[in-house]
Amino acid sequence: MTDLVGLYDGRIMALTTPISFTAEQFQAVTFNADGLVPAIVQEAGTGKVLMMAWMNADSLRQSLDTGRTWFWSRSRQEYWCKGETSGDRQFIREARYDCDGDTLLFVVEQEGNGACHTGEYSCFYRAFGSEADDADPTAASDGSA
Amino acid sequence: MTDLVGLYDGRIMALTTPISFTAEQFQAVTFNADGLVPAIVQEAGTGKVLMMAWMNADSLRQSLDTGRTWFWSRSRQEYWCKGETSGDRQFIREARYDCDGDTLLFVVEQEGNGACHTGEYSCFYRAFGSEADDADPTAASDGSA
Repeated sequence: MTDLVGLYDGRIMALTTPISFTAEQFQAVTFNADGLVPAIVQEAGTGKVLMMAWMNADSLRQSLDTGRTWFWSRSRQEYWCKGETSGDRQFIREARYDCDGDTLLFVVEQEGNGACHTGEYSCFYRAFGSEADDADPTAASDGSA
Repeated sequence: MTDLVGLYDGRIMALTTPISFTAEQFQAVTFNADGLVPAIVQEAGTGKVLMMAWMNADSLRQSLDTGRTWFWSRSRQEYWCKGETSGDRQFIREARYDCDGDTLLFVVEQEGNGACHTGEYSCFYRAFGSEADDADPTAASDGSA
């Protein structure tokens, strides 16, 4: 990966880049009845789909402002910043919204062991019809995990 | 694209491949209070994230059985098979579910002009912070659209 800079907790860390946005862009996002919008997270470079989680308006704004992914936990009813506990942080390289404004797509640089709390690199490590779980599937070009 | 076979409506069509699944795999999918689960659609080969839509248990089963993507329209309250009207069909190559079983990922061969009803190839054609809309962004390796 490129964009490495400095040291943080003794490790090389990726460059954090805030994402600028216009009021019009932010207003194009529509939140559901619970005030949430689904956010897909895809790995830069490999194209691997890593996870999907939910954002509310505050966590979306926080994500864009900080260049890190912030979500709203529906089960715990609290904000969480991906990797803040595990160290497996996500540095946003692109932030996108779909034609209806009701789904977000973040292209990130994934740090550490990946996105899934199970230890798998992607949360989508299980396939219908496969003989066994398959840990490295969704990438366009493999080899980064 | 590979997997081309025969003729259909005078065009070369992609091969339709049903996805086998076990009862255990199907039961691992959890549906929300409305009986729905979000389904991310990613293009095989390029890794481009094309769209996100919703499935219920019947449309998931139908998708796996037919090898085409079937969704449930929340606004119209009806099933729809992607591309049945537009011709821009999706042929499923992999069907995955995440660690919590509450999000699906379909890797598809996208036919025709792409996935978005606006005419863009991907529904995620707009980026926060970009000067202008950017039609070809999310692919790991570009060039197929």
